[in-house]
Amino acid sequence: MADGRKRYDRIWLGARLLTLDGAGPGLGAIENGAVACRDGRIAFVGREADLPGGWDAAERVACEGRWITPGLVDCHTHLVYGGDRAHEFELRLAGASYEEIARAGGGIVSTVAATREADEDALVGAALPRLDALLAEGVTTIEIKSGYGLDVATEMKQLRAARRLAAERPVSVTTTLLGAHALPPEAKGDKAAFIDLVCREMIPAAANAGLADAVDAFCEGIAFSTDETARVFEAAKAAGLPVKLHADQLSNLHGARLAAHHAALSADHLEHTDDEGAAAMARAGTVAVLLPGAFYFIRETKVPPVALFRRHAVPMALATDCNPGTSPLTSLLLTMNMAATLFRMTVDECLAAVTREAARALGRLDEIGTLSVGKSCDLAIWNIERPAELVYRMGLNPLHARVWRGR
Amino acid sequence: MADGRKRYDRIWLGARLLTLDGAGPGLGAIENGAVACRDGRIAFVGREADLPGGWDAAERVACEGRWITPGLVDCHTHLVYGGDRAHEFELRLAGASYEEIARAGGGIVSTVAATREADEDALVGAALPRLDALLAEGVTTIEIKSGYGLDVATEMKQLRAARRLAAERPVSVTTTLLGAHALPPEAKGDKAAFIDLVCREMIPAAANAGLADAVDAFCEGIAFSTDETARVFEAAKAAGLPVKLHADQLSNLHGARLAAHHAALSADHLEHTDDEGAAAMARAGTVAVLLPGAFYFIRETKVPPVALFRRHAVPMALATDCNPGTSPLTSLLLTMNMAATLFRMTVDECLAAVTREAARALGRLDEIGTLSVGKSCDLAIWNIERPAELVYRMGLNPLHARVWRGR
Ligand SMILES: [Zn+2]
Ligand SMILES: [Zn+2]
Repeated sequence: MADGRKRYDRIWLGARLLTLDGAGPGLGAIENGAVACRDGRIAFVGREADLPGGWDAAERVACEGRWITPGLVDCHTHLVYGGDRAHEFELRLAGASYEEIARAGGGIVSTVAATREADEDALVGAALPRLDALLAEGVTTIEIKSGYGLDVATEMKQLRAARRLAAERPVSVTTTLLGAHALPPEAKGDKAAFIDLVCREMIPAAANAGLADAVDAFCEGIAFSTDETARVFEAAKAAGLPVKLHADQLSNLHGARLAAHHAALSADHLEHTDDEGAAAMARAGTVAVLLPGAFYFIRETKVPPVALFRRHAVPMALATDCNPGTSPLTSLLLTMNMAATLFRMTVDECLAAVTREAARALGRLDEIGTLSVGKSCDLAIWNIERPAELVYRMGLNPLHARVWRGR
Repeated sequence: MADGRKRYDRIWLGARLLTLDGAGPGLGAIENGAVACRDGRIAFVGREADLPGGWDAAERVACEGRWITPGLVDCHTHLVYGGDRAHEFELRLAGASYEEIARAGGGIVSTVAATREADEDALVGAALPRLDALLAEGVTTIEIKSGYGLDVATEMKQLRAARRLAAERPVSVTTTLLGAHALPPEAKGDKAAFIDLVCREMIPAAANAGLADAVDAFCEGIAFSTDETARVFEAAKAAGLPVKLHADQLSNLHGARLAAHHAALSADHLEHTDDEGAAAMARAGTVAVLLPGAFYFIRETKVPPVALFRRHAVPMALATDCNPGTSPLTSLLLTMNMAATLFRMTVDECLAAVTREAARALGRLDEIGTLSVGKSCDLAIWNIERPAELVYRMGLNPLHARVWRGR
């Protein structure tokens, strides 16, 4: 009888691997490689020649030289929402003023209204085509934020819908409560009272229901101040939840520094982050999540300080920021192209940013993000000759197969 | 027995139509519409209520309120080529100088070498995934240029490969000889002698073999002068072929005026075109083909003069410019988004630009590009609530079905 330890459920042979594992430069490429899975986890990864003697597998998959990367991780999305903003986009291109768009029901208020109106089934149904577009490109883990409810019941409804997506499709979903996203109309400008609601009701409710894996806030002149954000972070800490932050997108409120001070998993956007902010992030291990889709779509001209992040060795992740107002984007491949083209990130930086660093930004690097023994067997298998093609091309999806937890 | 004239092969019912037909503003939208096909051509298009009495159809398709547009037309591509330039892209992002890239075999020379080396089957095989990506988004007609051979045999090989793609997939292909694309290494800087080759050998050979539907040239400081281009145009005229021009992309050599002077079907790129050029194009009926993928990918900052084209009523088309060096793009949906986001074209302009105006840029508006009785029944059927979604979204393909010549 075969040694049970060498009996795999499934093995992929004849592959080229981008493991993202190991020290040193480069992405841990391995030629003539194999990945084996047992009980949904990676049981072997390396050169075929290094497979243990006497191994056996219930199923063998010949990869014919295809590249295998870790399954992609989209670590910042607002995937669940009601309605869309295509008409607002159309009006703006036709020259409508902000007032005219507001009168036509545009802006974030329109998404909040549509999200409040939709029931949970409708939110799930509307999100599925967006999720499917991401999965078709090899995404195996996605973060989904609330933030279009802005009242306790709707924020919970968004988070429940996000959790349900994980039951509808073979994908891992991590949820983030973004109650402090914007001030709802009924708050009538009273930010302090709304932050009270977020801290005293939303965060405890989401934590008690097990509906949120993290807490996020939007720290910006048009949203919440650093003091208000700090209050949200304290409430998250009291509830035992890690934090993330929409920081320094439109101006430098020192959101990066604030996020680092609270040991945030990530600070996201960061177009206006300065040297001090980058240094603080490096010390805290806070990941810089860059969102080139929003940069492109709102025609931002201030590029995030990639050179600063490099100098301070701040890990850089990339995400779609999929949302109806500023980034109606459902392609991580295109996100990488934008990061290379617009931010001048290198191919290796881009590939690490949607795998290892995105996993780190979710606090899940021990589980996903690299091809490493013991991690979830989440794979993307590609019809490409070299990994750079994944960043270089625009609109072509060379995914051959996608594997989540070994299948 | 039914009146044969009212007997359709196939009818699509319960649709919303964007006909692109008729005078007046807007795109000819029709609610509660139907399209009927006979012998591959549109036999009826309009409101269901206006169907002739006693009509019958061999097959009925319920569209359940989906939108139908004309099949999309990609009117400027370099789809057929050998190799790719992903590695060059990677090197450039890593900070390599032009010299280093040239030494590593980069630049258009590398594509010319790979295209010369590939046999016709290999060129077809390499182009098919790119073609399939376009078709998956509803493209039913595509223009394909040669221009990576730069010798008679290889230019012919590229054109034959392009023609063969039309046999491999349900799509109309129009071919364009772009012999005057760049100077090949063996010309050793002698542009006059190379233009002789283009005019005396390439153009007659392509015309005699029926391999080219048009002739194009690249008029630019780094390519060919206006005088050289004019010689190419005269040779095309002598061979009975219409002309197009890569014009005013990097500088204003008055390529638009030259194209108009020769009654070109289109002038393409046009970032640097001036008022006089736009006016000349309007008088000549020359279409402005804008290529935002290349603009984006090479990080051009000079936006083509859309306002000028509007003022002079120059028709505007959009295309992918799919090519390995400056626009590795295979999505007309993303092309529209780029045109809206980067060039501020309106939703209606974008939609017309990939249907009616793209057909016009190919000289085929009598056959395709609008939903009109007598034209080829080329349809794209979309899972959308409003046409603006086709421009607004990035990376999501809402195509429900694609119909080419009635099937
Ligand atoms: Zn966001
Ligand atoms: Zn071109």
